[in-house]
Amino acid sequence: MSRVHTMRVDVEFGDCDPAQIVYFPNFFRWIDASGHRFFLACGVPPWHETERTHGIIGTPCVTIESRFISPASYGDAIDIDTHIAQWRGKSFVLQHHIRCGDRPLVEVSEVRIFARRVDWDRHRIQAVPVPPEWRALLG
Amino acid sequence: MSRVHTMRVDVEFGDCDPAQIVYFPNFFRWIDASGHRFFLACGVPPWHETERTHGIIGTPCVTIESRFISPASYGDAIDIDTHIAQWRGKSFVLQHHIRCGDRPLVEVSEVRIFARRVDWDRHRIQAVPVPPEWRALLG
Amino acid sequence: MSRVHTMRVDVEFGDCDPAQIVYFPNFFRWIDASGHRFFLACGVPPWHETERTHGIIGTPCVTIESRFISPASYGDAIDIDTHIAQWRGKSFVLQHHIRCGDRPLVEVSEVRIFARRVDWDRHRIQAVPVPPEWRALLG
Amino acid sequence: MSRVHTMRVDVEFGDCDPAQIVYFPNFFRWIDASGHRFFLACGVPPWHETERTHGIIGTPCVTIESRFISPASYGDAIDIDTHIAQWRGKSFVLQHHIRCGDRPLVEVSEVRIFARRVDWDRHRIQAVPVPPEWRALLG
Repeated sequence: MSRVHTMRVDVEFGDCDPAQIVYFPNFFRWIDASGHRFFLACGVPPWHETERTHGIIGTPCVTIESRFISPASYGDAIDIDTHIAQWRGKSFVLQHHIRCGDRPLVEVSEVRIFARRVDWDRHRIQAVPVPPEWRALLG
Repeated sequence: MSRVHTMRVDVEFGDCDPAQIVYFPNFFRWIDASGHRFFLACGVPPWHETERTHGIIGTPCVTIESRFISPASYGDAIDIDTHIAQWRGKSFVLQHHIRCGDRPLVEVSEVRIFARRVDWDRHRIQAVPVPPEWRALLG
Repeated sequence: MSRVHTMRVDVEFGDCDPAQIVYFPNFFRWIDASGHRFFLACGVPPWHETERTHGIIGTPCVTIESRFISPASYGDAIDIDTHIAQWRGKSFVLQHHIRCGDRPLVEVSEVRIFARRVDWDRHRIQAVPVPPEWRALLG
Repeated sequence: MSRVHTMRVDVEFGDCDPAQIVYFPNFFRWIDASGHRFFLACGVPPWHETERTHGIIGTPCVTIESRFISPASYGDAIDIDTHIAQWRGKSFVLQHHIRCGDRPLVEVSEVRIFARRVDWDRHRIQAVPVPPEWRALLG
């Protein structure tokens, strides 16, 4: 049974574009935040600690697939249900269901890796095997 | 033969996150801008005009698929090559190849519609058939 | 006695820059949201309604003065205390105290106007007298 | 004689809010970028290098004063003229004039410091004396 973490977002005026609806890149900002909070809620340390302890700087995306079903606008309170749909050797699938009450807004499926920097080069990162202790925490 | 539009982006310090690399939602902000400029360069009027003339408020995304190949960081000058890969009845496929010189960074494929508002409701938009005069302009 | 509205913000990884601290333009995004919520909490309708009823599209800033006292980083829960410090004929002073618990982070003082569009021109707005019924609501 | 650096910004649809005008926190994103480019154009190394060579992580703001004169909207090409108005012992005044052609939009005056981290603590930074070799470069 996978754990599901829900994050509430209050959509602000400044999150919307001249078409009066959420400017879509903001949805990616929010799912990223939801993923982080899911990890923290499960007990995975923040990245500034894991960089020291494991050399891991975060979980960058490898692929993202998203489907936009219905727009949101300011004043809406939306919820993001986040869970891990699959574990692979060096990656995992993180899924987000964004909804306003029962109305589905956006579905997102991400493949992410645990990454470390290579040779202190800002432009080179590489996947590392999923740390088993964190996989246990994340369920 | 499809037209290709290229937009240059200078990556700023503030576009990057604590891992020193571009915070990925910014790539979606940039491909959106690249799509807009492609339309304008082809002669499609800006949305504040099309809202008056056609009731069309823009081209919201229906789906986005993206693949992240290599990170970018501040100081990088990146290029986004945008073209329309396919026309459908009420939608079209817009593709973006983001690269730093010859190094590919991100590939994005979007399905977008031409949308108008329904009953002046901020939350309801619907697809309209692709205006043939714009399809001709966009090639 | 002025009313004070407090908004909680959880600082996200993506709100921070490569120096590991909040990228400062985000503070302005947050104080703007805090001001909006203050108005809504007092009973002032959202801007998409006031545009229809009063022709008022919002309360754009005329001046902003801000003082940055201490940085914040991801994982911090910060609070923004917002109140109206002064009413003038066509403008008002909105102040925000941003803090992390008792630690002050940023002080912001804004002069804002109630604005309407002139001749449907996107580039021309003008101040209107403060609607007395809203002034009464805002205390 | 102070040097002036000018940065061009093409205002995008996604930079604007439901009032159809630039969402004002974006101006702060842009002046920050303009300041960075000014430094780089003068020969000051990027912050990821200065962190290694001088322990300096950037030039965070101490105060910002801004005056909003006229709105901008998408499709506008705006210019930011940036210069250093004053040097002090541990700080300097950076001024930005944002305009659309000859039409002034926003005036910003910032006091910034050169900062280093204290004890590797993300929340503690301190001002260091202005490095004289950079002051010479910046004019």
